[in-house]
Amino acid sequence: MRNIQELIQLIQGEISALKIESQPEGMYDPISYMMSIGGKRIRPLLCLLAYRMYAGEEHLEEVMAPALGIEMFHNFTLMHDDVMDRSFMRRGKPCVHVKWDENTAILSGDALQIMAYQYVQRAPEKNLAACLDLFSRTAMELCEGQALDMLFETQERVDKDDYLEMIRKKTAVLLACSLKMGAIIAGAPQRDQDLLYEYGINIGIAFQIKDDLLDVWGNPAVFGKAIGGDIMCNKKTFLLIHAMEQADEHDRHFLQEYMKTNDIDRGEKVETVTKMYNRLGVKEVCESQMNYHQEKALQALRELSLPEECWNDFRVLAEKMMNRQW
Amino acid sequence: MRNIQELIQLIQGEISALKIESQPEGMYDPISYMMSIGGKRIRPLLCLLAYRMYAGEEHLEEVMAPALGIEMFHNFTLMHDDVMDRSFMRRGKPCVHVKWDENTAILSGDALQIMAYQYVQRAPEKNLAACLDLFSRTAMELCEGQALDMLFETQERVDKDDYLEMIRKKTAVLLACSLKMGAIIAGAPQRDQDLLYEYGINIGIAFQIKDDLLDVWGNPAVFGKAIGGDIMCNKKTFLLIHAMEQADEHDRHFLQEYMKTNDIDRGEKVETVTKMYNRLGVKEVCESQMNYHQEKALQALRELSLPEECWNDFRVLAEKMMNRQW
Repeated sequence: MRNIQELIQLIQGEISALKIESQPEGMYDPISYMMSIGGKRIRPLLCLLAYRMYAGEEHLEEVMAPALGIEMFHNFTLMHDDVMDRSFMRRGKPCVHVKWDENTAILSGDALQIMAYQYVQRAPEKNLAACLDLFSRTAMELCEGQALDMLFETQERVDKDDYLEMIRKKTAVLLACSLKMGAIIAGAPQRDQDLLYEYGINIGIAFQIKDDLLDVWGNPAVFGKAIGGDIMCNKKTFLLIHAMEQADEHDRHFLQEYMKTNDIDRGEKVETVTKMYNRLGVKEVCESQMNYHQEKALQALRELSLPEECWNDFRVLAEKMMNRQW
Repeated sequence: MRNIQELIQLIQGEISALKIESQPEGMYDPISYMMSIGGKRIRPLLCLLAYRMYAGEEHLEEVMAPALGIEMFHNFTLMHDDVMDRSFMRRGKPCVHVKWDENTAILSGDALQIMAYQYVQRAPEKNLAACLDLFSRTAMELCEGQALDMLFETQERVDKDDYLEMIRKKTAVLLACSLKMGAIIAGAPQRDQDLLYEYGINIGIAFQIKDDLLDVWGNPAVFGKAIGGDIMCNKKTFLLIHAMEQADEHDRHFLQEYMKTNDIDRGEKVETVTKMYNRLGVKEVCESQMNYHQEKALQALRELSLPEECWNDFRVLAEKMMNRQW
């Protein structure tokens, strides 16, 4: 059996070997660029891991195309989200709409979405309807997640449930879909498919909360980006939402007004907000919310029809994601 | 048997009755808007007509969802093309990116594309792989067509073959796909599926050339928009490309420079260019190119395995499209 690192290398090799059309190059070059600039390939990895837990490694090729399709879909959403969010950099490189232009990012994104479908369509015929059904439902939820994310930017108050629903759609469902699709193609029992989906949802939510936490309390040397980015752009993270709920009238008013400002020195702003977070016990509450989802994820694994040694990879993966410093 | 008008009403009724989600409304409202503001519904009509030629009208419901999916895909392309082309109006109403904003048009377009797939996925399971294969291949060609169209705007010289390839992808393949998908679901012989596809390609190309012709020699009262729009925005239509090929060195140079200008009075510019087109016999050549494709379309019909009375609707439709004044 390949270890995780070998599986990622396998996926990486498949992505490098993708036969992407070359003409018109104005449309296909940005697709090759986007697919080549990396990322952790976590979605196809989850898909392969779920598949081989039931079907072994002998016929991995039957799950490979759909797994790559999911990775393509993920990259399509990044390409369009970067336009909508006016981002400049992605994985340390200029975004497609920066390196080319906005029209290119729109059109190449559309084409990448179609390419994603073409790869998911290569699922074995007996599973085709189930895979596509899951995939399209998930794809739609991702769009809804992005819509909610943009909506929250201009919405005065966002509550915790709204936020959790947004990150469930924007981040968690595609991880869950990856796992479930692998299980479907492997012919896993329906209940196991659903449990893996449940596992995916919960690691997805926990992962995002961890991201919010790292933005404030991460180690900048390991985190890979400057601390306080979310604070500087006044992002309504789980931390801020929780702080707003915990704060008394006076603090809430201060925080609300302070988070609208854009003319305060970075160091000062990050320090002031972090102090308030510390005073309100935000870190502990968010960590406990994160642990709650991690525990739910592990609970789903325990209920699988397979013995623990079969799903050990998933347990380790969940722990790594939560204990990460990046 | 329903007549064409009744079939269009049936499609219209299905579109009005579509259950489009309502939340988040910022994403779904523009989809409802776009689907409601009309259009001739020619694509689902072709799909239904092709289907019933082989399978009758008794189980039209098995082709209806895929037919609507194709119409949704068409509307998705319009939503994104309008952003890329900086258009303001569509079917007499403000474009989505004008009525809402650009981010909304990007995201709602993405969601509409996924919705299109969800409807095509409702094709009968035995035809699912064939329908999706055709649909995705077509979708990709539409993106390529739009890429070529944008490329030609900045390209000094475009030849006739490039132009024909562009309109084949941008306009013709989705008509051809509509016909072929109806035939696939009806269980038509493979050769008939291919012939209907061929018919669709040729009426699509002829239709677009007719569009170019109407822009110059149409009757403004019937055409629905002002004459000379393509001339005013210096669009490389089939007419202009042909004129450039026919003109001598002197005329070509004049035309090339003249078409770059934007500060000439509309009446004068349209008149000058039209005069040159007339002198170069552009109208006749374009009409003969159009007739060539119409004839190829009819030839494909004649080779169908069915007697003429079965495909009479398609013959009439092709004639109506070519003789239209709008």
